[in-house]
Amino acid sequence: MKKITFIGSGNVASILSSKLKDKGFEIVEIWSKTETSARELALKLDCNFTTNLNDLQPTDLIMIAVKDDFIKETVHLITNKETPIVHTSGCIGIDVFSNKKKYGVFYPLQTFSKEIEMDFENLPICIESNNPSLESDLIEIANSLTTSIHKLNSEQRKKLHIAAVFACNFSNHLLAISEDIMKKNNLDFNLLKPLIENTFQKIKNNSPKDTQTGPAFREDKKVMEDHLKQLKNHKEFQVMYSKISESIINFKDDN
Amino acid sequence: MKKITFIGSGNVASILSSKLKDKGFEIVEIWSKTETSARELALKLDCNFTTNLNDLQPTDLIMIAVKDDFIKETVHLITNKETPIVHTSGCIGIDVFSNKKKYGVFYPLQTFSKEIEMDFENLPICIESNNPSLESDLIEIANSLTTSIHKLNSEQRKKLHIAAVFACNFSNHLLAISEDIMKKNNLDFNLLKPLIENTFQKIKNNSPKDTQTGPAFREDKKVMEDHLKQLKNHKEFQVMYSKISESIINFKDDN
Repeated sequence: MKKITFIGSGNVASILSSKLKDKGFEIVEIWSKTETSARELALKLDCNFTTNLNDLQPTDLIMIAVKDDFIKETVHLITNKETPIVHTSGCIGIDVFSNKKKYGVFYPLQTFSKEIEMDFENLPICIESNNPSLESDLIEIANSLTTSIHKLNSEQRKKLHIAAVFACNFSNHLLAISEDIMKKNNLDFNLLKPLIENTFQKIKNNSPKDTQTGPAFREDKKVMEDHLKQLKNHKEFQVMYSKISESIINFKDDN
Repeated sequence: MKKITFIGSGNVASILSSKLKDKGFEIVEIWSKTETSARELALKLDCNFTTNLNDLQPTDLIMIAVKDDFIKETVHLITNKETPIVHTSGCIGIDVFSNKKKYGVFYPLQTFSKEIEMDFENLPICIESNNPSLESDLIEIANSLTTSIHKLNSEQRKKLHIAAVFACNFSNHLLAISEDIMKKNNLDFNLLKPLIENTFQKIKNNSPKDTQTGPAFREDKKVMEDHLKQLKNHKEFQVMYSKISESIINFKDDN
């Protein structure tokens, strides 16, 4: 399995296709609904491009890397039933391919961003397939990129995806709120970086539950009330402050 | 200013006193309301201990490191008005010392944990004082520990503290929730570590606002609905999922 077609031209498609090309795979074709995007990525990869899902060139594997919400309709628009096909999403089940023959999932557990160089060496890739030979092929492809390969079924992958949203997207948002509070008070966000660094260093060898600190964890009620008062002009931050603090306290009691 | 008395025997008092002793300061005495704790820390530091705030030994500086909620009453129980006195809290104003002569704040911006070795080199220490000569002394003490010294007034320090709660305590809690979801589904939390590492590496040179990814940021409504459905047995996680997702979407629109 050497010839791969990418459906999509966003971050995942761009980074994955170029990385696989580096590793010796032949990228046959890029599909995108907008011709400019398809052409732009195809130019970088020196391959064909199309905007027509009904007339894809012969290939060994179709890899779908479009927005999660569009995977289902994209799969249905691909009339080819014979060519092995996978998607790259954490939250879409394998059953989306029920009208195909050989299908699977090739889910790199990472947030892809065109601007930021990625370390592929430790990148976990989660594999699922309805067909043992395709599964082997997917493992081989993953193996060219990383040593961290995991066979997960759709249910497990969905839970993993939710856990990733909490651990990464949501914690990143709290960092964004923190930066916003600093900026609005003419304070340099860099001041917080050693503390942030420490927070995430700690969980390398400890459970985050065991390293929790702060006013909510200590149940410093006066401090929490004062914080809520100071956030009075930002209702949304206040709500999050309350809900997360409550949850920190409940977590102590529960476990 | 070489002789320091510590009021408190918790994490901040333990770590700070032992670090300052290493740097050549003389720790005169440890106060704690529980004799066992006072004795235990005093033994390590080879100094006196007491449970009586009315009869402290002569010292150059009293450093209060008790739970934030108890600082006010602790200050009032210390009858000595002459000796310079500081607290180590991010969220308590300098006005708590209004019945003293020379006072200030010596706030190390870090979460102290007895179990985890701390890097003091980059530790920001925030200084405030009502008296220029005490301020110089506090800067000198801070200077023995770190090169990152910041003069902040009480208002700024309180905002910094709130920002730190969001950036560290709250994001740590989301990591704890993430670990909980993984455990309950027999998935190894280590699988998420490269992604978490990447999330926090990215903000070293980027604004977290600019590196946001995920279903809420992309407004993948179907994915978010599915995630909420999967969290149906954990109302609290559902509420946080909704509130934080809403906030991610609002943040995009606002800025």
